[in-house]
Amino acid sequence: MVLETEHRVNFYDTDTMAVIHHSNYIRWFEIGRVELLRAVGITLGEMMEDGYVFPITEVSAKFHSPGYFDDVLIIETTPTALTRAKMAFDYRIMRKSDRTLLVTGHTQNVFTEKATGKITRLPAKYFERLAKGLE
Amino acid sequence: MVLETEHRVNFYDTDTMAVIHHSNYIRWFEIGRVELLRAVGITLGEMMEDGYVFPITEVSAKFHSPGYFDDVLIIETTPTALTRAKMAFDYRIMRKSDRTLLVTGHTQNVFTEKATGKITRLPAKYFERLAKGLE
Amino acid sequence: MVLETEHRVNFYDTDTMAVIHHSNYIRWFEIGRVELLRAVGITLGEMMEDGYVFPITEVSAKFHSPGYFDDVLIIETTPTALTRAKMAFDYRIMRKSDRTLLVTGHTQNVFTEKATGKITRLPAKYFERLAKGLE
Amino acid sequence: MVLETEHRVNFYDTDTMAVIHHSNYIRWFEIGRVELLRAVGITLGEMMEDGYVFPITEVSAKFHSPGYFDDVLIIETTPTALTRAKMAFDYRIMRKSDRTLLVTGHTQNVFTEKATGKITRLPAKYFERLAKGLE
Repeated sequence: MVLETEHRVNFYDTDTMAVIHHSNYIRWFEIGRVELLRAVGITLGEMMEDGYVFPITEVSAKFHSPGYFDDVLIIETTPTALTRAKMAFDYRIMRKSDRTLLVTGHTQNVFTEKATGKITRLPAKYFERLAKGLE
Repeated sequence: MVLETEHRVNFYDTDTMAVIHHSNYIRWFEIGRVELLRAVGITLGEMMEDGYVFPITEVSAKFHSPGYFDDVLIIETTPTALTRAKMAFDYRIMRKSDRTLLVTGHTQNVFTEKATGKITRLPAKYFERLAKGLE
Repeated sequence: MVLETEHRVNFYDTDTMAVIHHSNYIRWFEIGRVELLRAVGITLGEMMEDGYVFPITEVSAKFHSPGYFDDVLIIETTPTALTRAKMAFDYRIMRKSDRTLLVTGHTQNVFTEKATGKITRLPAKYFERLAKGLE
Repeated sequence: MVLETEHRVNFYDTDTMAVIHHSNYIRWFEIGRVELLRAVGITLGEMMEDGYVFPITEVSAKFHSPGYFDDVLIIETTPTALTRAKMAFDYRIMRKSDRTLLVTGHTQNVFTEKATGKITRLPAKYFERLAKGLE
């Protein structure tokens, strides 16, 4: 499964060099991740109500080409690993108009108990939806 | 009481026009407000543990002159009203090097119960510290 | 003319109180404003290439009700004033699901020369498009 | 050379989980990098006036422990590589009060011509200051 989400670059996403500030792409990886989970039937809101959160433990990105104000971006999210303890995703962010590759990246997150912050095993209810959706 | 706090402008605070994006000043009003409360012996952490929060209900700002990357700013915070139900503050943000006035602003917040989100009257414990500090 | 734009609330838009941080609404006013101008045939990119920018000189907002992660918001933008020297807009931000009014606001901007930062009169080319579009 | 910079966590840096949103650490790496360069006598402002910029080409981070609102953080920046074409830095971000390690990270940037965006070799003027300062 690969999910594409669109995001238009706002003025406040850019910096003095008139390009997108690199930290924003890390934020937009999250947009892709959240939409991919929604597509397999999982919302963070439901998980949090059940007492689970999944904080990011690792992130990396390579910046290939600059993006600009008003660009419409494609955030392409691909799950690359899933266990009951953690997930990983790859990302590619492209400019929609010319399909220029701007950024590639990777994140890993672990499932934790909201109350204690301790790493936990994801309940079957969620794991099955994820595993099925990500086949 | 008037409190001055310093803040150096980061690259990610600027935009394509090579100036500070106006929304960031609204964030920096909060820096001034938090430091002023700290100066009178109140931290938001202590209040939240006691079950109180004080969300912003109104904000306004006038932008007089642009600020730039690497500017050291002075955030000047002045309390202008205090009751058991709400507080108000005025702000002036200046560039430290030449004291140019960049932004003036105002905020109002109400005291609410964290659990319910309902407006509440601030307990004497906090009100007295505030009233004394703000004399 | 009234323009409605949608924006889904990201995790990074929220704060420790589990609500949208108030400063983000100021940023989202910009989303509405940019889309309204696009709807009347003006992009900031074209104006900047022609040497014009229009910085915000005033902003104000009232916060009526909290918004949450994953809410889909409606940003309603209404032009309220237009001269060759400045523009003003009103905003209403609502939660789409239940049409709860979260925030109302107002901004004013002036037309300036990009090179000098000085206030200028908007050329007929842009003014006519604006005036026609905003009728 | 290792440089330590302090940063206090703002309310708007946190998210619905009541912890610092991970994307902010990427922004704070920049604070450390800018201060380290200032310590060796280089400001981005001077370099930009001379026509040079140095965009980030790679970033990675591991998140070890959560940080909270009002924490004072230590951003520890260490240069790890320097050529006329690029630089690299390592980062460690700790909570000041208990020296808990929150985040480790790495960035790489290339020197480019501001006008063209093309990779360039850093002039001796800057390279010598960097090399001497980073010994």
